[in-house]
Amino acid sequence: MNPLLTEIQHNKLFWLLVFVPVVFAAETLQHDAHTLLFILSVLAIVPLAALLSHATESVAAKTGDAVGGLLNATLGNLTELVIALTALRAGQYVLVKASLAGAIVTNTLFMLGASLLLGGLKYHVQEYNRISARMQASLLFLATVALLIPSAVSQADSVAGAAFTQKLSVGLSVLLIVAYGLGMLYSLKTHPELFASAESGEAGHTPWPMGLALATLAGVTVLVALVSEIFVESVQKAAEALGMTPAFVGFIVVALVGGAAEMASAFSGARKNRLDLSVGIALGSASQIALFVAPVLVLVSYVIGPTPMDLQFWPSAVVMMFIATMTASMVTNGGRSTWFVGVLLLMVYAIFAMTLYLLPPRVA
Amino acid sequence: MNPLLTEIQHNKLFWLLVFVPVVFAAETLQHDAHTLLFILSVLAIVPLAALLSHATESVAAKTGDAVGGLLNATLGNLTELVIALTALRAGQYVLVKASLAGAIVTNTLFMLGASLLLGGLKYHVQEYNRISARMQASLLFLATVALLIPSAVSQADSVAGAAFTQKLSVGLSVLLIVAYGLGMLYSLKTHPELFASAESGEAGHTPWPMGLALATLAGVTVLVALVSEIFVESVQKAAEALGMTPAFVGFIVVALVGGAAEMASAFSGARKNRLDLSVGIALGSASQIALFVAPVLVLVSYVIGPTPMDLQFWPSAVVMMFIATMTASMVTNGGRSTWFVGVLLLMVYAIFAMTLYLLPPRVA
Amino acid sequence: MNPLLTEIQHNKLFWLLVFVPVVFAAETLQHDAHTLLFILSVLAIVPLAALLSHATESVAAKTGDAVGGLLNATLGNLTELVIALTALRAGQYVLVKASLAGAIVTNTLFMLGASLLLGGLKYHVQEYNRISARMQASLLFLATVALLIPSAVSQADSVAGAAFTQKLSVGLSVLLIVAYGLGMLYSLKTHPELFASAESGEAGHTPWPMGLALATLAGVTVLVALVSEIFVESVQKAAEALGMTPAFVGFIVVALVGGAAEMASAFSGARKNRLDLSVGIALGSASQIALFVAPVLVLVSYVIGPTPMDLQFWPSAVVMMFIATMTASMVTNGGRSTWFVGVLLLMVYAIFAMTLYLLPPRVA
Repeated sequence: MNPLLTEIQHNKLFWLLVFVPVVFAAETLQHDAHTLLFILSVLAIVPLAALLSHATESVAAKTGDAVGGLLNATLGNLTELVIALTALRAGQYVLVKASLAGAIVTNTLFMLGASLLLGGLKYHVQEYNRISARMQASLLFLATVALLIPSAVSQADSVAGAAFTQKLSVGLSVLLIVAYGLGMLYSLKTHPELFASAESGEAGHTPWPMGLALATLAGVTVLVALVSEIFVESVQKAAEALGMTPAFVGFIVVALVGGAAEMASAFSGARKNRLDLSVGIALGSASQIALFVAPVLVLVSYVIGPTPMDLQFWPSAVVMMFIATMTASMVTNGGRSTWFVGVLLLMVYAIFAMTLYLLPPRVA
Repeated sequence: MNPLLTEIQHNKLFWLLVFVPVVFAAETLQHDAHTLLFILSVLAIVPLAALLSHATESVAAKTGDAVGGLLNATLGNLTELVIALTALRAGQYVLVKASLAGAIVTNTLFMLGASLLLGGLKYHVQEYNRISARMQASLLFLATVALLIPSAVSQADSVAGAAFTQKLSVGLSVLLIVAYGLGMLYSLKTHPELFASAESGEAGHTPWPMGLALATLAGVTVLVALVSEIFVESVQKAAEALGMTPAFVGFIVVALVGGAAEMASAFSGARKNRLDLSVGIALGSASQIALFVAPVLVLVSYVIGPTPMDLQFWPSAVVMMFIATMTASMVTNGGRSTWFVGVLLLMVYAIFAMTLYLLPPRVA
Repeated sequence: MNPLLTEIQHNKLFWLLVFVPVVFAAETLQHDAHTLLFILSVLAIVPLAALLSHATESVAAKTGDAVGGLLNATLGNLTELVIALTALRAGQYVLVKASLAGAIVTNTLFMLGASLLLGGLKYHVQEYNRISARMQASLLFLATVALLIPSAVSQADSVAGAAFTQKLSVGLSVLLIVAYGLGMLYSLKTHPELFASAESGEAGHTPWPMGLALATLAGVTVLVALVSEIFVESVQKAAEALGMTPAFVGFIVVALVGGAAEMASAFSGARKNRLDLSVGIALGSASQIALFVAPVLVLVSYVIGPTPMDLQFWPSAVVMMFIATMTASMVTNGGRSTWFVGVLLLMVYAIFAMTLYLLPPRVA
C-alpha cells in the first residue's frame, strides 16, 4: 500500500479521492439532490480515472512491450467504457452516443489543441514524427467514416429504415472490432517502430508492484462503476437544473472527465517537447473509441440493454465528428506545430461546445 | 493468330473464354433463366476484358508513347463504357449511375487497398512517388467534386428542379471532357515525367503484331457489347432472385468485372514492389470514369437513350464517392504504405458493400 | 498630387476612373436606368479598389512591418467590406451573404487557380513555401468551418430555430474576431518568418508620401461608399434584366470586383515565379473574409441593419465554401505547382459559376 499512499500524498489530484466516500454518503442521505450528486460524482471520477491510469501503466511496464501496449491501448479508455456501459444499462442512449461522439471530438480537438498550445507557449516551433501522425490520423479518419456511414446513409436516403440501421450497425461493429484487432497486430507486432514513442509507460511514475497494480485496477474499476451509477441517475435532472442538455453533458462533460488522466500525460509530453506522445495519445485514444468502445457497446447492448443500440448518430454529431477528424488529419499532416495551431483547434472545439450549449434538447 | 492462341493456352484466365459461346447458346435456348444468364455473362466478360487489355497495350506499345498513352488511358475503361452504354440504351439509368459510382469507389478503395495489402504482405514498407500520387489524387478529387455538384446542390436546395439539373449536367459534361483533354495534354505532352512509370505497357506481355491487336480490339469489343446485352437484360430479375438490388449489382459487380483486367496489373505491380504502377492505375482509372466515361454517357444519352440522362446521383452514392476520393487522397499523401493501410481501405469498401447489400431497392 | 497623377497616367487601369464622375452623373440624370447604373458602378469600383490598394501599401511601407502588415491585412478587403456594409444597411442580406461566400470561393479557386495557371504557362514547375501554405490553408479551413457551423447544424437538425441561430452567430462572431486578433499576433509578432514573403509591400510601386496616401485612403473610401450605394440600389433590377440572380451577382460579380486589385498582385507574383506571394494573398485574403469581415458585419448589423444578420448560409453556399477550402488545402499541400493544377481550380470555379447561373432565384 505504501507506494499508493506515497503517490496520493504527492499528487494533489488524488486529494479529490475524498469525494468518493462523500458521493456515496450523499447518495444515501440526499437521494434527490440531483445537481449536488452530479457535481460530486464528476469530482469523484477524476481521481479514480487517474488511479486507473497509473495502475494500467504499472501492469504494462511489468508485462513487456507487446501485452503492455495492448493493455495500455485497451484500458486507456476504461473510464469512458464504464460510464457508457452504465448509461447503456439505464437505457440512456442519447447520453451514450453523445459520450462516444464527444470522446472522439474532445480527443482530436481539445486534447490535441491544448497540447499544441501548451507546448507552443514554451517552444517556438515543435516537430513530431509526421509519418506516425499521418498513419494514426488516417486510421482515425477511416474509423470515424465507418462509424458514420449508417447515419449518413439513413439521413440521406429515406428508403433506409430502422431494421436496416440495426442490421448494419451490428455488421459494422463486427468489422470495426476486427479492424481493431488487426490494428493491435499492426502497432504491436509487425510495425511497432512506427508507434515507438507514442504509447509507452514513460509517464514518469515509478511503477507499482504487480499485485498492488492489479488489485487497484480491479477495485477502482468497481468504484468507477458505482460512482457512474450515481452520475447517470442524476444527469438528467441535474442537466436541466444547470441549463445543459444531456447531449451537451455527454459530449463535453463525460468526455473531459473520462479523458482527464490521458490529458495530463498528453500535456506533460507537450511541455517536455515530446509531441509524439501527445499526438499519439490524442489520435490513438480517439481511434479506440471508434474502433473498440463503440462496437463493444453495440454488441453488448443486445445482452444488457433494454433494447439493442445502433450506430445512428444525430446529424450535428455526424458533422462534428467528421470535421474533428478531418481537422486533426490536416493539422498533423505537416509534422510541425506552433502555438497558434493549438489555438485554432481549441477554437473549433469552443464553437462546438457553444453550439451544443445553445441547442435545445432533443428527443431520443 | 499464333501469339493469341499461345497466350490463351498459357493464361488460365482465358479458359473462361469458353463461357462466351456458352452464354450465347444459353440465351437462345433458355431465354428466361435470368440468374443463369447473369452468372454466365459475368463469367464471359472477365476474359474478354483481359483480351481487350492486352490488345490495347500491344497497340500502345507500337504507336509510341504519346498516342500509346492516350490509347491506354481512353480504352482502359472500355469494358465499363460498353456495359454502361448497353444499360443506357435499355433505359436502366439506376444501373448506369450505380456502375459509374461503383467504378470510382472500387478503383480508389478496393483496387488500391488490395494492391497495398498484397504488396504489404510481401514488403515491410513500400514507397512510391508521392508527388505523382498527390497530383493524381487531387485530379481525382476535383473530378469527383465536379461530378457531385448537381446532386449536392439539388439535394440541398429545393429551388433546383429537374430542368436545372439537366442543363447543368450537360454543361458539366462538356467542361469535364475539356478537362479530360487538357489532362491528356498534361500527362502525355507537357509533363510526362510526373507520370512516367504509371501507365506504360510494362505489363510483362510480349506485344502482339499490330494487325492482330487491332482485329482483336474490334472483334472483342463487339463480343463485349453482345454479352453486355444479355447481362443488362438479365440483371433485374437475377438480382432479385439472388437477393441483391440493381444498385448493388452496378456498384459492386459491374465495377469488379469491368475493372478485373486492370486489377491484375495493379496487384502484380504491388507484388513486384512497383507501387507507382498500382497507385497510378487505381487513381488514373477512377479519374477517367469521372472525367470521360460519365460525361460521354450524358451526352450520348441525348442520341441513343430513351430520355436524356443527368448527373444526379442518389445521396448515399454521393457520400460514398466523396469519402472514397478523400480517403484515397489522405492515404496516398505520404508516399509510404504498409499492409495495414490496405486493410483500412478494404474495410471502408467492405462497409460500403455491406451498406449497399442491406439497403432496400430504390425507385429511379 | 504629382505621384498620384503620374501613376494614373502610367497605369491604364486608372483610366477607368473616368467612370466615377460618369456614374454619379448617370445616377442623377437617369435614375431608373438600372442596368446602365449597375455596369457603370462596377466599372467605377475597379480603379477605386486599385487606388485603395496602392494607398494602403504606401502607408504600410512607411509605418514599418508590424503596423504595416496589420494595415495590409485589415484593409486588403476594404472594398468588399464597404460594398457589404452598404448592402447590409439596405437590408439586402442575400447579397451580403452571397458576397461573403463568393469572396472566399473566388479567392481560393479563381485567384489561386489563375495565378497557378498564369505562372505555370511560363514556368515548367513552380515551387513555393509549403509550410507557410499549409499553415494558411489550415487557418482558412478552420475559419470556414467556424463560419459554416450554424448553417450545418440548423440544416441538419430541425430542433434548432431562428433564436438559436442568432445567438450562435453572435457568439461565433466574437470568437472569430478573437481568433483574427490572435492570428495577427501570430503572423506579425511571434512567427513572422513563416509568412515572410507573403504580404509585404513588394508590389513594385514607389510608395507615395504619407500625407497623400492617407488622404487618398480617406477620400477613396468615401467614393467607394458612394458608388456602392448606386451599385446596391441597382443590382436587383439589373440582375433580372441581365438574367442573373442576386446570389450570382454577389457570389461572382462582387467578389471579382472587390478582389480585382489583389488579383493583380497575385498574378504578377506568379509570373515572376514568386508563388509564395500569390498563395499568401489568395489564402490570406480568404481567411480574413471568414475571420474578420463576416463577424464584423454580423455585429455591426445590430447597429446599422434593419434587423440583425446571422451567419446562416443557404445549403449550396455551404457546400461550395467547404469544397473550395478543402480543395485549396489539398492543392497547396505539396508545395509544387504546374499549369494543370491551375486549370483544375478554375474548372471547379467554372462549375460553381455555371451552377449559380442556372439556379433559379431564392427568397431570403
